[in-house]
Amino acid sequence: MAEGGSPQRGRGVLPWNLKLPRGVPLSDHKLQVIPLGGLGEFGMNILALRCGDDILVVDAGMMFPGAELLGVDIVVPDISYLVEHRHLIRALILTHGHEDHIGAAPFLLAQLDIPVYGTELTLALVEKRLEDRKLPREPRLCAVKAKETVKAGCFSVEFIHVTHSIVSAVALAITTPAGVVIHTGDFKIDPTPSDNELFDLHTLADYGKRGVLLLLSDSTNAECPGFTPSERGVRGPLEEVFSRAEHSLLLSCFTSSTHRIQQILDLAYHYNRKVALVGRSMTTNAEIAHGLGFLRIPDGLLVRPPDLKLLPRPARTLLIAGSQGEPMSALSRVSVNQHRNVSVEAGDTVVLSSRVIPGNEKGIFRMIDHLCRRGAEVVYGSTTPGVHVSGHASQEELKLMLNLVRPRHFVPIHGEYRQLARHAALAEHMRQSGLERTIVLESGDVLEIDARGARQAGRVIVGRVCIDSGSVDEIVEDVVMHDRRNLSEDGIVLTVIAINRHTGELESQPEIVTRGFVAPDDGAEMVARARQIVVKTLEGSTDEEMTDYGVMKAKISADLKRFIARRTSRRPLILPVILEV
Amino acid sequence: MAEGGSPQRGRGVLPWNLKLPRGVPLSDHKLQVIPLGGLGEFGMNILALRCGDDILVVDAGMMFPGAELLGVDIVVPDISYLVEHRHLIRALILTHGHEDHIGAAPFLLAQLDIPVYGTELTLALVEKRLEDRKLPREPRLCAVKAKETVKAGCFSVEFIHVTHSIVSAVALAITTPAGVVIHTGDFKIDPTPSDNELFDLHTLADYGKRGVLLLLSDSTNAECPGFTPSERGVRGPLEEVFSRAEHSLLLSCFTSSTHRIQQILDLAYHYNRKVALVGRSMTTNAEIAHGLGFLRIPDGLLVRPPDLKLLPRPARTLLIAGSQGEPMSALSRVSVNQHRNVSVEAGDTVVLSSRVIPGNEKGIFRMIDHLCRRGAEVVYGSTTPGVHVSGHASQEELKLMLNLVRPRHFVPIHGEYRQLARHAALAEHMRQSGLERTIVLESGDVLEIDARGARQAGRVIVGRVCIDSGSVDEIVEDVVMHDRRNLSEDGIVLTVIAINRHTGELESQPEIVTRGFVAPDDGAEMVARARQIVVKTLEGSTDEEMTDYGVMKAKISADLKRFIARRTSRRPLILPVILEV
Repeated sequence: MAEGGSPQRGRGVLPWNLKLPRGVPLSDHKLQVIPLGGLGEFGMNILALRCGDDILVVDAGMMFPGAELLGVDIVVPDISYLVEHRHLIRALILTHGHEDHIGAAPFLLAQLDIPVYGTELTLALVEKRLEDRKLPREPRLCAVKAKETVKAGCFSVEFIHVTHSIVSAVALAITTPAGVVIHTGDFKIDPTPSDNELFDLHTLADYGKRGVLLLLSDSTNAECPGFTPSERGVRGPLEEVFSRAEHSLLLSCFTSSTHRIQQILDLAYHYNRKVALVGRSMTTNAEIAHGLGFLRIPDGLLVRPPDLKLLPRPARTLLIAGSQGEPMSALSRVSVNQHRNVSVEAGDTVVLSSRVIPGNEKGIFRMIDHLCRRGAEVVYGSTTPGVHVSGHASQEELKLMLNLVRPRHFVPIHGEYRQLARHAALAEHMRQSGLERTIVLESGDVLEIDARGARQAGRVIVGRVCIDSGSVDEIVEDVVMHDRRNLSEDGIVLTVIAINRHTGELESQPEIVTRGFVAPDDGAEMVARARQIVVKTLEGSTDEEMTDYGVMKAKISADLKRFIARRTSRRPLILPVILEV
Repeated sequence: MAEGGSPQRGRGVLPWNLKLPRGVPLSDHKLQVIPLGGLGEFGMNILALRCGDDILVVDAGMMFPGAELLGVDIVVPDISYLVEHRHLIRALILTHGHEDHIGAAPFLLAQLDIPVYGTELTLALVEKRLEDRKLPREPRLCAVKAKETVKAGCFSVEFIHVTHSIVSAVALAITTPAGVVIHTGDFKIDPTPSDNELFDLHTLADYGKRGVLLLLSDSTNAECPGFTPSERGVRGPLEEVFSRAEHSLLLSCFTSSTHRIQQILDLAYHYNRKVALVGRSMTTNAEIAHGLGFLRIPDGLLVRPPDLKLLPRPARTLLIAGSQGEPMSALSRVSVNQHRNVSVEAGDTVVLSSRVIPGNEKGIFRMIDHLCRRGAEVVYGSTTPGVHVSGHASQEELKLMLNLVRPRHFVPIHGEYRQLARHAALAEHMRQSGLERTIVLESGDVLEIDARGARQAGRVIVGRVCIDSGSVDEIVEDVVMHDRRNLSEDGIVLTVIAINRHTGELESQPEIVTRGFVAPDDGAEMVARARQIVVKTLEGSTDEEMTDYGVMKAKISADLKRFIARRTSRRPLILPVILEV
């Protein structure tokens, strides 16, 4: 009632429209935001929202471990917090079907009896992961379409279509008693996606207009200036490769990149080539996407890999798994000429239409070196940046998201610390009116929001659970879960192999060291047998494999693991150490 | 004498000018080119040339090992070939002072009594590495200036000044009985180097005119299109950082990058800041470069690190070692607040003016994350590409080199296989007249060249010798050599540490496993003591260090190594394995 003057009631302005900031809670409900993974670390995205006695879980991703966690194949989040509060959890909501968002779902469902909501494709990918796995109960998978709303306890969740490298990805508008939370999932703002399903900017704008309490937004590319190019941008560079390839053409991309696979199929068709899908994850993912109508495959385009040899070389195209140089993947095996059906010959062209996930550089470059040794031309990011575009929003898109949603509070999600910090700085520099606070959280930090504002309120238990599944093929296809059985219970098997660096031959019997694994009395014979297994694996390897310690370690791991599992039905962590002497 | 018409003798054209191809050998001498390291692998550059009973060695570099060779600190080439032919070796010629070209020199000199030729700066850096090391005899280090020629057996070697990230780098024109060999060393063609010492194109052109038998040329950047920007190009982006930095400014670059250090000193002076040199390798390299007149340091610019605190924050500049995120380096220690004299506060700016060496991504990103957590703004390649330029030639410069030298044979050197292959393809596509053959060699391949041409002729023994020196500081300053004592003789000590992922505490006593190291009878007490050492190291670490397994492994390695060396005067390979349970 001071200088600003009193509201002019006579002119029909509603007083609550003037006095209350946008997005203000309608009551004094308290909302807790609890990231259990993916904030301050790469992958393993999982976040809980709690309001009163209701908990909602968004995503349940896994992480591929670095070389530091030698011998461990995948890492899933510690869900002690969820297990402890299992009676309060109303649902698991999945934003899209990438490993770092759904990979830990089987692990969650083994311990929690909760319904799972996601788009049809996302759930199909989860179902595939659940195959061959005995859950204590039938999982409740509920398909939801974009624009539909799901009720879960006091939450209601609207699915909002977004563009990303995988199709059928959504953001979430989560209405809670304390206000609306927008969770972007992973996204880019692609004005010309290859399936013409546009980003649903309008629904987001509507929420923004009505008032949003909190925005949680993808920070993966927060360090990249500008706008991420449209998926359609790779068409030109890929077409150039197709137009000058004189022999076989091998293309590798993330096997979940439906857009990319579609563009490659279209180009192969246009250039009168046949396509073979190589690698289990490539076949499976393509089958699922095709089955749901997301992939258009012209009749007669596909051939089986063994039939490739019947075709002239200029008619051969291979869509092949293994763009990250995983030691046991199809493309890695091809690069050392160890694949059953496929080989690379001088003059062939290999395209890596994918980014290098940090930590995988050495493996990928080693694979490229092998392919070059076979005389292939290898086209990848360093030589032709245009053959891949990112699926994540760059800085200008992130600003657009903030402009559209106009949140009262902002928490950057999905990223290592520097990316979260950069995203937060970006928001701060915008000085967008209505944005009260930007908070950088890390996994385990609890944020509380109520009518008085947002503040950090302690921590919950978070961490990583390591799972050793023996071979990359198995990771992708068949995640064997440990049911939170403590790793230390199963123990460790170290095997130290000394290889003569001149002759490449075994210098001495492999050493096998076990800890916390078998009782010493029946251990001796077991260790002797394990030693033989390692020797057999080494003898059965080619010279080329022997020079690639990544491959050798994976082979030794897989063989030892199989032997030990059969003999003891235990799954110790297996650490192969190769020494050149 | 056919369609082309006979030479017009009457017009004074000399017949031998017409009939003999350029660079043809004057006799039937046979030249052998024997790369012993650095071809098909990154680092560890060393190459032998043999003609009759004379062998010349060019460079003797080391390599930093990847995560695969866990616990090993540096890797040097196997020089069995040289040791076997020690009586034939006439000299070691060094092209410049980078680790991957001189790092194995002490190792060579411990076994071979040969004179070493290089520029003054190069030899000063070698001398530093030889300090504290007992060689069987006084090393014969002979300083040579650019344009001077050295005789060694049947070879005569002219030093040709080139531009590179380190000053005082040379290419070599090696005149052999079979013809002239040009070895480029590492180079870029920088038209405006910060010291105004231009690339000596004229001498190279002269050799090209007179005829060159073989060109050996740097392939590091063979995948980069265009021209590498001048070193002067970083001045603008760095100046922008200086102009907007409000508090302390920490800059890290390769400590051998004299040009870069000079530019940073100049900017600090211009912006009225004082500079402290932090990290032993930074101090040492700057001292050496300054002592030889390569670094101009205005009076009163430098302060000692402990005196930084006496200055206001906007007057503080730190030139700090550790741009590769090496766990024990100065910048890594600062990032986890474990440095004696230096700390980072909110609002400070940290600049990484360096490239990411493949394999170091994870360590560097982890360090950046820590720095961001302390509230620093971190400026590096991903955010501001302009703060670093490469010291190696891109494709257009490589073509210029081929044009200038006009070799009869070409062998790409210094690179992993894909880079060598790309460089070779580049040369082939140029279809330069006079270029008879381009040959991709890998370390160990022998190339023979004589009047009839060039051909591969078998292989010699090559390989890697792993050296564990305990901590990165020691690697840089004081390479402890094993005198080719076989690693397997000293054995292995594995230590397995199980850390509770919730509490960060030790879950059980550390396991110590030794192999081939101590006799079992006196082993028990030793192992018990080693266990205590590990416990002490863990207890003496901060929470932040504990979350960084790279740091923890390095600390445990260093402490265990010291204990074991003191007790047994042995240097086993130490492998710390950390498990989260």
